[in-house]
Amino acid sequence: MAKRIILASASRDRKRLLKAINLTFEILPSNFVEDESKTGNPLEIVMRNARGKAQVVADKLHGENGDALVIGADTVVEFHGQIIGKARHQFEAFQILQKLAGQTHQLLTGCCVIDVQSQKSHAFVDVTDVTFAPLTEEDIWHYLEFSDEYRGRAGAYSLQDRASLFVTKIVGSPTNVIGLPISQFRETFLNFGVNLLAGDHCTI
Amino acid sequence: MAKRIILASASRDRKRLLKAINLTFEILPSNFVEDESKTGNPLEIVMRNARGKAQVVADKLHGENGDALVIGADTVVEFHGQIIGKARHQFEAFQILQKLAGQTHQLLTGCCVIDVQSQKSHAFVDVTDVTFAPLTEEDIWHYLEFSDEYRGRAGAYSLQDRASLFVTKIVGSPTNVIGLPISQFRETFLNFGVNLLAGDHCTI
Repeated sequence: MAKRIILASASRDRKRLLKAINLTFEILPSNFVEDESKTGNPLEIVMRNARGKAQVVADKLHGENGDALVIGADTVVEFHGQIIGKARHQFEAFQILQKLAGQTHQLLTGCCVIDVQSQKSHAFVDVTDVTFAPLTEEDIWHYLEFSDEYRGRAGAYSLQDRASLFVTKIVGSPTNVIGLPISQFRETFLNFGVNLLAGDHCTI
Repeated sequence: MAKRIILASASRDRKRLLKAINLTFEILPSNFVEDESKTGNPLEIVMRNARGKAQVVADKLHGENGDALVIGADTVVEFHGQIIGKARHQFEAFQILQKLAGQTHQLLTGCCVIDVQSQKSHAFVDVTDVTFAPLTEEDIWHYLEFSDEYRGRAGAYSLQDRASLFVTKIVGSPTNVIGLPISQFRETFLNFGVNLLAGDHCTI
C-alpha cells in the first residue's frame, strides 16, 4: 500500500498550495500546543512548532501502525526583531498592519516532514522579505472592514487575496508568503524518495 | 450609472487575480494584433501591446457611447536579451524551460488603463526577477506531461500551479509573475478616482 501523505495543519492556505500541485493528501490537524512566545529566535520557534505539530500526528499514526509522511509547518512574521503572529481581533490586526505599512518585514515558515515508520525526519526554515506600500489609517480600516481575510494569518494579511493590493515586492519564495515554500518542500520530499515533479502521490 | 470596468484580455490568470481582489468587471477580449516580435526593447513591446489591446476595446465602447475603464495587459519573459513569449507546442515549451532552468529571468508585464469617455490613459511596466531551480530534462518532461498549464503562458510555466515546485525565488511583485502587478494596478486606478482598497467597484 502506498504511503499516505498527511498535512498536520488546519491552514486553508497550505491546503490550497498542496492542491495546486495536485498532491493527494489528507488533513489531520495536530493538537500540539504551539509556542506563541513573542521573544526568542524566530527561526527556532517556527522550527520547533513545525516539528512539534508533525511529531504529535506521527506518534499517533505510529501507535496505529500507520505508514505515512507527516507534514508540519508554522509561519511567523519578524519585524525589527519583533515576532508577530496572528491577530486575535480586528484592532490587533490594525496595529500590526500599521506597523508593517511602508516597510519590509520577514516572513518565516518552518516545515518538518516525518516518515512515520522509519521516524526519519527532515526540517527547514524559509525566509522571504515582504514589502508593503505605504498605507493610511483609512486604507488599513478599509482592508479590515472589507473582509476578514486577516484572521488566522501571520502578520494579519493574505497575499493571494486583497493584500495583493498593497504587497509591492517580495524577495524569496512566493509560496512561502502564503504558508509553505513549495520548491523547498519538493526538495525535502526527494529525501523520502518522493518526486513531486514526476507526479508521485499526485493526481491529474 | 457607475463606470464599467472592462478587462480587454482573455487571460484566465488576470481574471483570477482580479477576482481575488473582488473587483466587479467584465471581459471583452481585444482583437488587437499583438506584436510578437522577439527582437527590440521588451519594455516597449509589452507597453505597445497593452496599450493596443486596451485602445481597440476603448474605441469600440466609445463608438457605442459607453462609459468604462478598459484594462489592457501583456506579459513576456526576457532572458539574456532574448524575448520569450508563449510556447506554441510542447517541444517549444521544453526548449524554453531548459533554457530557464537553474537561471534567473525577467518577467515583464505592461498594463494600460483607458477611460473611454475622457480618453485619459495611464500605463506602466513592471519587472520581476524569477529564479528556477536546476531541472533535469526528465524533470521538464514530467512537468509538461503532467498538465498543459504551460499553454498560453509567457515562459511556458504557471507559478500558481505546479511551477511552484521549481520557482525558488522571485524579486519583485508576485502578482506580476501571474500576469498583472496588482499593487501597481491599484495606484493606477487611483488616478481615475477609483480606490480599490476602499472597495470601489468591488463586491464582498
